[in-house]
Parts: sequence; structure tokens; C-alpha cells
Amino acid sequence: MKTLTSRLRDRRLAQILEPVEAGMEQMRACVSSQLASDHVTVSEMTDHLGSFSGKQLRAALVLLSAHAAGNDHPDLPQVASVIEMIHLATLVHDDVLDGAEVRRRVACVNERWDNQVAVLLGDLLYARAFHLSTTLSSPMVSEVLSQATQRICEGEIIQAGSRRAFEMDVEQYEFIAGAKTATLYRAACELGVAYPAADNPGQVQAMARFGEEVGLAFQIVDDVLDLVGEEEAVGKSVGNDVEDGKVTLPVLATYASANESVRAAIRAAYGDADVGDRRAALRSACDLQAGVDRAMKRAADLVAQANGRLDCLDQGPSKKALSMLGDYVLERKW
Amino acid sequence: MKTLTSRLRDRRLAQILEPVEAGMEQMRACVSSQLASDHVTVSEMTDHLGSFSGKQLRAALVLLSAHAAGNDHPDLPQVASVIEMIHLATLVHDDVLDGAEVRRRVACVNERWDNQVAVLLGDLLYARAFHLSTTLSSPMVSEVLSQATQRICEGEIIQAGSRRAFEMDVEQYEFIAGAKTATLYRAACELGVAYPAADNPGQVQAMARFGEEVGLAFQIVDDVLDLVGEEEAVGKSVGNDVEDGKVTLPVLATYASANESVRAAIRAAYGDADVGDRRAALRSACDLQAGVDRAMKRAADLVAQANGRLDCLDQGPSKKALSMLGDYVLERKW
Repeated sequence: MKTLTSRLRDRRLAQILEPVEAGMEQMRACVSSQLASDHVTVSEMTDHLGSFSGKQLRAALVLLSAHAAGNDHPDLPQVASVIEMIHLATLVHDDVLDGAEVRRRVACVNERWDNQVAVLLGDLLYARAFHLSTTLSSPMVSEVLSQATQRICEGEIIQAGSRRAFEMDVEQYEFIAGAKTATLYRAACELGVAYPAADNPGQVQAMARFGEEVGLAFQIVDDVLDLVGEEEAVGKSVGNDVEDGKVTLPVLATYASANESVRAAIRAAYGDADVGDRRAALRSACDLQAGVDRAMKRAADLVAQANGRLDCLDQGPSKKALSMLGDYVLERKW
Repeated sequence: MKTLTSRLRDRRLAQILEPVEAGMEQMRACVSSQLASDHVTVSEMTDHLGSFSGKQLRAALVLLSAHAAGNDHPDLPQVASVIEMIHLATLVHDDVLDGAEVRRRVACVNERWDNQVAVLLGDLLYARAFHLSTTLSSPMVSEVLSQATQRICEGEIIQAGSRRAFEMDVEQYEFIAGAKTATLYRAACELGVAYPAADNPGQVQAMARFGEEVGLAFQIVDDVLDLVGEEEAVGKSVGNDVEDGKVTLPVLATYASANESVRAAIRAAYGDADVGDRRAALRSACDLQAGVDRAMKRAADLVAQANGRLDCLDQGPSKKALSMLGDYVLERKW
């Protein structure tokens, strides 16, 4: 049963999506027809992806930005679909990358077969997304999203090479978090305003920054939830970052201001030795509250900065919805 | 030290590539600049890909088909690069899919980290390939190759769902082998002739079929080599198909004409029980020679059929090179 907080959040989301509900419906139909396949083996797998769909905030950003900027190009629901499909592909490949996820799937007969399917299915989603983008009347979506995908992959690769990097500075953390998450938020806002051809570069730039800042705030909150949230409240598994050696903003902030004995205890929680539940070990090794507060402060600052960008838009229901979105991102609870 | 056969093959390949050597050089430079990265972690990985480059037959097919059809569009080396990069991406993801490969990498500190990198690096290659295709003057490459990539992924997914399918018919085998391998051969020939816009549909169709048939022949020979070749002669690890439960054409042919006790022995070699080297178990369970002969006969027939398609081209050095390519594919030795 849903809690009161969760029902309030659902209502908030419905309010945000309200101005573009018709476009969201078209987007969902488009994604679903794109996932269909004549081959039974393939369709069995793509059918399963329906459960991955989530809140579709990226698609909403395309449609809200477009609507707020007075852009009513008929391709926009398809543009939003391409972005959701690329997002879906990254989620499917995260299944392979995320050891915790694989470990939890104890019911699977053969872990390797599952990895195979996840890799191929992700590849298929990327290919379908790019193919859909080539059918649109402007090449802008293919251009922007093939570049965005590169940035996402580079961010993830750099993150994979930055395990247990406790001395990482905040810029480096934000570079990675921005690349892997803010990229699609930025592209969504940019394409919503600019598609099929940018005639107001100032507005496009402002909305790209809005997307970047909201996306980065989203990732910071996500990292905080993974660190101190409870699985039931967050709605997905938690503690994956510590298990995977990812040092996120709240941990970086805690580590930076800790003395050497606390630092050693933090490193041990992330270390080679088997300490059982790594997140629990980390939480008993140090007081994370100040680090969490600093991270949430940064996320709030980013949202405030983002909301300032909305001055480039005229008043209206979609501008209002966009200005609610940042707070929605900040208010995810644990 | 190279054997006489291997040196003769190198000379044969050099002869085939000779008419398009300048374009191949441009293609190699283009791929290499596409793989470069400002990020050290990324460039360390992409540098490593140089060793994957192989014979670049797909790029050669773009350039030879173009040259033979009198197409000298300046984008062609880039078109060839996009195809090679997509091929490279599939190879990198094969690393994840191919359990044998992963098992052989005993030197790796952490198998999971390696899987991560392979998935992300493959994704990055796909994204760069698609991005390069969006910079070309015609959208044809983006369209053809995003569709080709879908077919490759679907073929691989269907193959993953067809493990130990001893009753599979030849059409189903060729559907899978065609999808995963012939697709890029077909696209290479098609784009070489048609880029930037098809003005001779009959010729484009004939060359697409040439590519499809040569590509399928290549895969059949590859499957034969994996079954009965020796690692040193083939130049890569063998026996992976039996390990992975893939029932290829020579095995299908053997199984179809075997009595029930031999069939049971074949199934046991592929079965759940640990039989050590599965390929060795299979080879002692049955006489594969007749099946190998039938598979090689099919490959030779495909090459003969393919060579007939070349009637659509005028005489010249590139047409001659294309007609040598099928024999080159058939003559891979074990």
C-alpha cells in the first residue's frame, strides 16, 4: 500500500505532466510499437521492458520545454521516444554493469545467459532509437543524441576507472555525474526547444543549462538515496554505489573533512576485505549527515540556478510545470 | 613464423585490396582519429582496440564495390569507417557474450570490471559510429546501418535463444548466421554502390545480394573452423560454439543423418554434465566429416551464386578483386 508521501508525490508528478499528457500518451504508444518484434524470442524480451518505464521525466522534459517555448512540431512525441529508448538502453546495460543487480537475481538459471541478453537487448534498443531518429524530418535528433550517448559512455568509463577515488575533487565528481545523467536531461530540453532547427540560440542554450542543472541535481539526490535511503521508501535497491566502489558526493564531502582514523575506516568499508554489508560498514565508520547535507545543499543550489534559466520562457502552464520539476527532484524521500 | 600457406594468403589479400589501397589508408586514419579521446581512461581502452582491427574486409567491400561501380564520392572512406567501427563494437560486445573468451582471461584482476569496460566501450563505439554517420552529406549511411545493427542484434538474440537446438532446420541456421554476419557485408556492398543516393536500383540490389551471400559463406566457413580447425592455424580460439551450445551447420547436418545413439552422444557433448573439452567430446561422439563437407559445399555454392551477381559491374581491377574475395573466404585453412 502506498504511503501518504508517495501518493502526494504521484499527484505532484501528475500535475507536472498535465500540460503535455496528450504528447506523453503518443510517446508511450510510439515506444511500445518500437519495442514490438516479429520474432518471438525478441518480443518476449522487449515485452519485459515495459516494467522498466519509470516516470519518463526525460520525455516529459522534451514536451514541456517544447510547449513552454511555443514549439508544436508534430515529430516531438517521437523525439521524446528516442530519448526514452536511449535511456532504456542505458538501464538495460546497467543491469550488466551493476553487480548487485546480477547478484540479486538468484532465480536465474544461468547468470551468463542473462548478461548476454542484457547486452544484446541494450544494443538493439540503441539501434532502434537511432533508427527512429533517422526517420525524423530533421537530422538534429540523430546528431544531438549520438553525441549525448558518447558523453554518457565516456562518463561511465571514467567512473569505472575512478573506483575508491576518495581524493577526487567535486569537479571530477560532477563531471562524471553530469556525463552519465545530466546529458539526457540537457538533450531533452535542448531538443524540445530547438527541434527541428534552432532559431533562438539564446533560449536553446538557457534550456540546455536548465536540463544540465536539474539532471545533475537528480543524480546527486540519487547518490544520497543510495547511501542513506531505505529500499522500500526509495523504490529500488540501495547501497550499490558502496558495493561497486563508487565514491559519491556525500562520501567525498565526509571524507574530505574527516581525520585520518575515520578516513581509514571509510577506506576499509570500501576495501578488499569482506566486511559484509559495505553500506552498513560505512555508516558505522563515520557520521555521514554533514556530507549528506552538503550534497543536498548543492542539489538545491543547482535547482535554484536551473529555475533562474526559465526566465527565457513566457508564462504558462508548461513553464510552471518545469519550475515544479526541480523541487520534485529534490523532494525524493528516504 | 608464418607458414607458406599463410604467406600466400597474405599475398592474396594484398592483391584483393590493391585497387583501393589509398581509400583503405584513409579509412584506417579515420577510424584511428575516431577512437582517440581526451580522457586518459578512455584513450587507454580505445588504444587497445587497434589490435582488434583484423583484415577489414567490410571496409574493403565498401571501397571495392564503389570503385567497381564507378562511384568515387569523397565520403566513401568515412562510410567504410562507420562500418568497421560498428563491426568493432560487435566484437567488443562479443567479448562479454563469449564465455570462453572471458574464461581464458585468467590474468584479469576482476572479471566483472572487464565486462563493464567491454559493455561501455562497445556502446561508445556504436555511438561514435552513428555520430560519424550523421556528419556525412547523405543520411543513407545512418539509415542503412541503424537498420543493419538491429538485424545483427536480433540475430544474436535469436541465436542465444536457440542453444542446443539440434532440430533446427537449415533455413533457421542461415537466418541467424545471415543476420549476425552477412548483414554488414550486405550493407558494405550496398552503400559502396548506392552512396549518396541510389540511381541504379538493379545494381544496388545485385551487389547487396553479393554481400549477403559472401557474408553467409564467411560465417559458414567460420563455424566449420571453430568446429574442426586448430587454434594456431585459424589464428583465434576454437571450440567456442560447442562450449556455448551453438549448433552450427556442420553439426546440424551430422545430427540430421545420424542414428539415435549417435544423436544422444552429440547431445551429451553439448549437455549439462561436465565432459571436459566439449569439442573433443563431440568429435569423438561422431564422424563430422560428411557434415563439414556439406557445409563447405553450401559455402562454395553461395560464393558461386555471389560471383554471378558481379555481372552487373563493368570489367576492371575492382570487379576482379571482388570475384577473388569469395575464394579467399572459402580457402581459410585449418
